[in-house]
Amino acid sequence: MASTDPIFLKNCWYVAAWPHELIDGKRVARTILEKPLVLYRGESGRVVALDDRCCHRAAPLSLGRVEGDNLRCMYHGMMFAPSGKCIQIPGQEVIPPKLGVGSYPIVEKDQLVWIWMGDPALADPALIIDYPPLRDPAWRGLPGYLHYDANWLYIVDNLSDFAHLAFVHTHTLGGSEEYAFKTKPVAIERLADGFCVERWNMDSDPPPYHRKVIANKKDKVDRRNIGRMHVPGIFFLETTFAPAGSGAERGNLAGAREYRNCQFMTPETRRSTHFFWNYLHNFDTDNPNIALSLYESMCEGFNEDKAFIEGQQKLHDLDPEFKMLAIGADAALSHFRWTFNQRLAREQAAATA
Amino acid sequence: MASTDPIFLKNCWYVAAWPHELIDGKRVARTILEKPLVLYRGESGRVVALDDRCCHRAAPLSLGRVEGDNLRCMYHGMMFAPSGKCIQIPGQEVIPPKLGVGSYPIVEKDQLVWIWMGDPALADPALIIDYPPLRDPAWRGLPGYLHYDANWLYIVDNLSDFAHLAFVHTHTLGGSEEYAFKTKPVAIERLADGFCVERWNMDSDPPPYHRKVIANKKDKVDRRNIGRMHVPGIFFLETTFAPAGSGAERGNLAGAREYRNCQFMTPETRRSTHFFWNYLHNFDTDNPNIALSLYESMCEGFNEDKAFIEGQQKLHDLDPEFKMLAIGADAALSHFRWTFNQRLAREQAAATA
Amino acid sequence: MASTDPIFLKNCWYVAAWPHELIDGKRVARTILEKPLVLYRGESGRVVALDDRCCHRAAPLSLGRVEGDNLRCMYHGMMFAPSGKCIQIPGQEVIPPKLGVGSYPIVEKDQLVWIWMGDPALADPALIIDYPPLRDPAWRGLPGYLHYDANWLYIVDNLSDFAHLAFVHTHTLGGSEEYAFKTKPVAIERLADGFCVERWNMDSDPPPYHRKVIANKKDKVDRRNIGRMHVPGIFFLETTFAPAGSGAERGNLAGAREYRNCQFMTPETRRSTHFFWNYLHNFDTDNPNIALSLYESMCEGFNEDKAFIEGQQKLHDLDPEFKMLAIGADAALSHFRWTFNQRLAREQAAATA
Repeated sequence: MASTDPIFLKNCWYVAAWPHELIDGKRVARTILEKPLVLYRGESGRVVALDDRCCHRAAPLSLGRVEGDNLRCMYHGMMFAPSGKCIQIPGQEVIPPKLGVGSYPIVEKDQLVWIWMGDPALADPALIIDYPPLRDPAWRGLPGYLHYDANWLYIVDNLSDFAHLAFVHTHTLGGSEEYAFKTKPVAIERLADGFCVERWNMDSDPPPYHRKVIANKKDKVDRRNIGRMHVPGIFFLETTFAPAGSGAERGNLAGAREYRNCQFMTPETRRSTHFFWNYLHNFDTDNPNIALSLYESMCEGFNEDKAFIEGQQKLHDLDPEFKMLAIGADAALSHFRWTFNQRLAREQAAATA
Repeated sequence: MASTDPIFLKNCWYVAAWPHELIDGKRVARTILEKPLVLYRGESGRVVALDDRCCHRAAPLSLGRVEGDNLRCMYHGMMFAPSGKCIQIPGQEVIPPKLGVGSYPIVEKDQLVWIWMGDPALADPALIIDYPPLRDPAWRGLPGYLHYDANWLYIVDNLSDFAHLAFVHTHTLGGSEEYAFKTKPVAIERLADGFCVERWNMDSDPPPYHRKVIANKKDKVDRRNIGRMHVPGIFFLETTFAPAGSGAERGNLAGAREYRNCQFMTPETRRSTHFFWNYLHNFDTDNPNIALSLYESMCEGFNEDKAFIEGQQKLHDLDPEFKMLAIGADAALSHFRWTFNQRLAREQAAATA
Repeated sequence: MASTDPIFLKNCWYVAAWPHELIDGKRVARTILEKPLVLYRGESGRVVALDDRCCHRAAPLSLGRVEGDNLRCMYHGMMFAPSGKCIQIPGQEVIPPKLGVGSYPIVEKDQLVWIWMGDPALADPALIIDYPPLRDPAWRGLPGYLHYDANWLYIVDNLSDFAHLAFVHTHTLGGSEEYAFKTKPVAIERLADGFCVERWNMDSDPPPYHRKVIANKKDKVDRRNIGRMHVPGIFFLETTFAPAGSGAERGNLAGAREYRNCQFMTPETRRSTHFFWNYLHNFDTDNPNIALSLYESMCEGFNEDKAFIEGQQKLHDLDPEFKMLAIGADAALSHFRWTFNQRLAREQAAATA
């Protein structure tokens, strides 16, 4: 892919940070869609995103200092407002109006800091995808972050086919290779901006990560995963473990355990990705060790994925001409890539129009 | 050199591994001629070489699992036969016939795993160069491996002129700078696929590596090296230390000590090389410390070479236009490069025909 | 900037090394203006600079051995005179006259080793810029070296505007942010080959680095900095701390403390720089701890600069099209870059003529 090809959707909201990354006046240097940015929370509480490059001599603004809601470059002391406009030059009275850096719309919602990298005029907060469990006190979980040296679409692919649980995560999130052989997607729903896949695995041992947080570790379970993927790379997973044969597939959830999982893939570059996630549970929520155990299990599992996903990126870089061959299980990911490319083409067309 | 120029001979056998690298179901990820491969020994004992990239989503097959003589990709569970053909897709009955990965002819012979990277129809095991000491119980040695960040031809060059023993290896393999001044190649024989060089050094101190494994450490020796280099980069060295003045040059080998050394250079990329070697001795073979001592001495010596050879590569990369200037001692290496280029041109001509 | 654009002045003297780097027969491998060189002191005391690449097989000559004033390549033993000419090939009587490597004029003066990378016919030692404090026993200091992963012009920029002392060096060399707000350059003098800037800061606390080496740590001082920058990147700084209100600005230096600082920027590549410096004092020179303390303070301060300067380089590399925007304080650096580009253009014109 030539470096001039459009590769990122710009007119959409991406997760830029967890709020806990922005405490105590920290300036977070973070590249998003190949643009180096600095993120900080001003003293009023407002989160600001600016280009991480002073317009004067290209010094990194992330080495700067927060003053009020402004950011002072600590090289020669120029100060920038949240709008990006330069508002002070030490030792100089008049500030040329063109002095300033890029500023990006930010919205905080449900413990997520969202950023809009495209046309600011289009940055409608109502377009932010809603995920109630993150604000619902009935659900408890810990926010996680992982950096991938791989294009975000490989992570989307990974989440599109849960057969990989059987092989990549046998001893962590999967539990058994039967998961790939005995279950199939019950349904793949093609959405306008992604897909929804539902998969059942009946009468199986509870997988290791679940066994660690439940009392009854031996009884068989009926497991359901419902995964929803949305453009540009947002994934919600609903997981249910019901006692085997209790009729969960007919709606009886008595004695079931439920999880809600959100994953947000934000391209850092075409070859690297910021990965934000939270794995929430709604049982025994007064026991903090459950969230901690689930957090650890997910880190273990995601690192298992990482070896494959970063391996894919490396092998593609070595041979950019390589064409992948689809199998039946790729229906969801193929639809997602088609959907994504449609959106990208529309955005490009609008930009040229 | 543009990346599209032919640089490697493909229709010939290369050493791919030592057998001890393939024990216990290990999958060795090894790039040969810029092609990432996975090598493994199937349960029948057969060694298999496949592309280290699943045809489905480009996951590394070296993260896979050996089952029988097959290899299962541990991303989504697809299984590949030694032929490269896909023979199982979990959760899918029908396997499209085009699903498969590249497979490469392998022959095991005399403790060496050989691979053929070119046209499989031409992969005649009779073309494998024979080296009897590796299978002869009269000779004992330890298999070695070294990785060079340099084109293999720089290693060929190194072995073409033993004057470097005098300077690079004075305190290890060489023994004295006299070796460069007082000896000359007695004979250079131009072979159709390489060269043979014979060099004598009379009445000299035994070099450090030899002194370490003999009882009589002080008496002068007459030293003979006969080196044979074959395309694409295979080197055999015959070394004799006879008591000084005993007439070894006339065939009297009474009291002499002999070594046999094989070195196999397999291009990893145009800038890096796999280097396999064994330094064998045929005296006191019931004493395992001799082979260990020689192994250590060679590691020490090869690492001395490495500084020069990797330095050459770095300096060429900085200035690809640099032309080396030949001296008299370069007759052997010049002939080798000429021979190699002839072979390469013939192979290219046959490929286009 | 395309790699074929001229970027370095070649017909001028650059600092190549401190003499203490060349003791005990050491061969210093050092790249200057993107040319890999080896520097050594011959047994006669003469310093020699040669291409760090043997003309035979491109082995690094910095792995060689000094013999007399010559350098022997320790790969195959070829010996090179200070002129670069090959004067010995072990085992070969006749030496082809074209065998040799590049040699560069060297002059040692005042504890600095200067090199001329351009036309040797123009290498007039009288062109070396004089800096008497380095040879004057009244001044004492320690020679320092720092490596920057940045183009040298970013360091020139840094030294052109001392407002950065207020922000980058508040707790080391600067002392207070007032320095940027309350002082201005008293005068900027445009020189034919650079600039001279004088800056006063009256009635201020002594900055931390100065406070460490004086007895009276509390009394206010009047501080004067006079910085002179010369093409290609040579900086001299005269610093005076006088008792506040004592009339230093009218020439009364009673009770003042003085420093002399030289900094020499030698391009390693277009993206990296050798930085040589000495910070000298002329009081309490029998106390060696003062020079040591000043040395440590400068290291601390220069490393504060390094974060900004290397950050600038990284940000420019990510977006080579970025144009910096000038402010009033950039008058000196703008003049320097104009002066430098004039010199560069003249040198190019002369080379083509």
